[in-house]
Amino acid sequence: MPDCTIQSISTYDARFALPPGAGTDSIHATSEYCLAMTLLSTQDRQRGSGFVLTLGDGNTLVCKAIEMLAKPLEGMCIEAVMADFGNISRKIADHAALRWLGPHKGVVQLALASITNACFDLWAKSRGVPLWKLLLNLAPEELVRVLDLSYLEEILSKEKALSMLNEQLPSRAQREAILKGGYPGYDTSVGWMDYDDEKVTELTKKALSQGFSAFKLKVGSREESRDLRRAAMLRSLVGEESTLMFDANQHWHLPDALRICSELAKFRPHWIEEPTHPDDIQAHVELSRALSPIKIAAGEHIANRVLFKNFMRAEALSFVQVDCTRVGGVSEFLTISFLAKLFDLPVVPHVGDMGQLHQHLVLFNHIGLGLKVEFLEHIPHLRSHFIHPAQVKDGVYHTPQEPGASADLKVLCES
Amino acid sequence: MPDCTIQSISTYDARFALPPGAGTDSIHATSEYCLAMTLLSTQDRQRGSGFVLTLGDGNTLVCKAIEMLAKPLEGMCIEAVMADFGNISRKIADHAALRWLGPHKGVVQLALASITNACFDLWAKSRGVPLWKLLLNLAPEELVRVLDLSYLEEILSKEKALSMLNEQLPSRAQREAILKGGYPGYDTSVGWMDYDDEKVTELTKKALSQGFSAFKLKVGSREESRDLRRAAMLRSLVGEESTLMFDANQHWHLPDALRICSELAKFRPHWIEEPTHPDDIQAHVELSRALSPIKIAAGEHIANRVLFKNFMRAEALSFVQVDCTRVGGVSEFLTISFLAKLFDLPVVPHVGDMGQLHQHLVLFNHIGLGLKVEFLEHIPHLRSHFIHPAQVKDGVYHTPQEPGASADLKVLCES
Repeated sequence: MPDCTIQSISTYDARFALPPGAGTDSIHATSEYCLAMTLLSTQDRQRGSGFVLTLGDGNTLVCKAIEMLAKPLEGMCIEAVMADFGNISRKIADHAALRWLGPHKGVVQLALASITNACFDLWAKSRGVPLWKLLLNLAPEELVRVLDLSYLEEILSKEKALSMLNEQLPSRAQREAILKGGYPGYDTSVGWMDYDDEKVTELTKKALSQGFSAFKLKVGSREESRDLRRAAMLRSLVGEESTLMFDANQHWHLPDALRICSELAKFRPHWIEEPTHPDDIQAHVELSRALSPIKIAAGEHIANRVLFKNFMRAEALSFVQVDCTRVGGVSEFLTISFLAKLFDLPVVPHVGDMGQLHQHLVLFNHIGLGLKVEFLEHIPHLRSHFIHPAQVKDGVYHTPQEPGASADLKVLCES
Repeated sequence: MPDCTIQSISTYDARFALPPGAGTDSIHATSEYCLAMTLLSTQDRQRGSGFVLTLGDGNTLVCKAIEMLAKPLEGMCIEAVMADFGNISRKIADHAALRWLGPHKGVVQLALASITNACFDLWAKSRGVPLWKLLLNLAPEELVRVLDLSYLEEILSKEKALSMLNEQLPSRAQREAILKGGYPGYDTSVGWMDYDDEKVTELTKKALSQGFSAFKLKVGSREESRDLRRAAMLRSLVGEESTLMFDANQHWHLPDALRICSELAKFRPHWIEEPTHPDDIQAHVELSRALSPIKIAAGEHIANRVLFKNFMRAEALSFVQVDCTRVGGVSEFLTISFLAKLFDLPVVPHVGDMGQLHQHLVLFNHIGLGLKVEFLEHIPHLRSHFIHPAQVKDGVYHTPQEPGASADLKVLCES
């Protein structure tokens, strides 16, 4: 009988240079994507890989925090960990000393996410199934036990979460068609800030020919006229039938956001993303009201379920871009998906994981929780570094079949 | 002529064991207070000391982040740094890689605070005056230039901040009486969670005899009856004329907070502090409405000016407990004080600095900004470690006279 006891916990500071201009936006002059990785090894030589995205030297801090926070998992069987993960992850998050540094945000939250994601990967591998299948195979009671619902009690009790899952059971089968047909990706990598117009044009044409029909453009240039010119160019390139999104990466203050977004509205974006500071709920509310019917998307930098609850209650966002490498990992991603279901909002993850884990979570959200699938962001720059890169063909995400969460890096495969 | 160029930047990881039970509350089983220190040394042998409070191993992470973030200050003259500190601190906060880890919260924000506080200490020392006097001596234009007002533009422009300072100039002299008379402290250290009833009684009697008339009790016990019993005990001990505050340190979820706070209201607290999760603005709004006239205090874990703006706009708090060792340092503390003035709310800092820096800031807020002074928290456990500990006599904070921000530690005085 295999021994799933977690024998050792280590970290790996993975850094990958990006092609020139890739990853750039109005705020981040990114030249490398980094993954702060948690590696769990069991007695029976299984390995759990979890990670969060950071940029550059931030990775050092997150790796150090992982080492500090993950210790309680040593010597525990992964099945025992996951049978009570809601409580165990809460204890990790509420570390007597390190909670002070958040709580539930910043470096310590990123560390929790990396640890959590490694636990889910290991759990799925130890059962020999892909993460999406593991989650769908869990009884509703088991699924709810992986969630930490604290500070949501007034709207999402355990009983409520359980009934939400049970309600969806009868109609699950009809939603399983997605496992065969897949679902669309949308292409962020056509429109990075530092790409010149020629490059955006070339990449957009290529993506169109590959079957993509939804595209994102980075906005928030120093010269507003550049944003408007490029928005017009992209709309003209992709035609009226395609979907456009604009992403300002928090660049504008509220008065600028109100002015520029109403200009950008002419190009009929599906959403405007991160128009201002991610902590400014009230500014998001005012933008949502002023720009209607244009909708606001946010979540890439919203750190936890409590903040998401506040955004949703205030009607500050229309698309929930929760990222399991920003909030406390797969578990809190699911919790926030329950909240989105309660508020009847679509979940369209930001893919700090490059779509590797989120491709699983989108499937669970649709089949298990009854959330509509719109599409999933696709960023290809790190594809070649994964053992099992997401299969996006003809603009469509296809269902991963390998056991685990598709998080293993090639560079670690021989170690 | 002295050369105020910053020649070297280093960190010091200071850790101090606390007496048994001191520092404990419903969430933090603290056994040591740690200060993540930034040390700036100039050519002419001046030293700037800045710090933030953390608990235990969190200090390692903050010290590491300080090293990463402080580099741009090397080789700059402190006068040049402070003449444009609003822009310079914004650039530090928006570090191309490390901003991702926040933004403006968690470990990177604590690091910014430590760096900022060292800059203000060095600036005041280089001019040979206490921090409060430095701030009062600045022309309104100079003061506004140390502030980063980004993401507040819709309510607090530079022009608005300037006019707020100018408005107060004619009435300054009458408020300067506080420099002679001092202002009251309130005593948090009588009521730590792990102190038994006998200890609370003994310490409260001692504090009463020392002239204190305001006291804080930690609540959020596992058994609610303990909170109510101790609240009754403390009210009985100090009499109806004294001021009581209850502090739950984020322990309750909203339904519990509503129930228990309405029980605690019987003991006429001046405020109930951190009743629930510090990110839950809407829960604070509901509590404020339900408990009126009992008021809510919060801020110890509110990380930046954008979040404070949201709390204030939503009427989610009645006492602003901003802490210059939680937000981005002295500069952002001042910015948030401007916001408080706009919203007509009292600023009663949480003293992660043990009252060393905040004693200066309270004086500036009162004289320069026209904010009423209620009192300032007093926590004595680290007094003996400072070269110039705050002078609290007969329950009153007396005006510090030494140059700088009173942040130097004895352990570093020979190095």
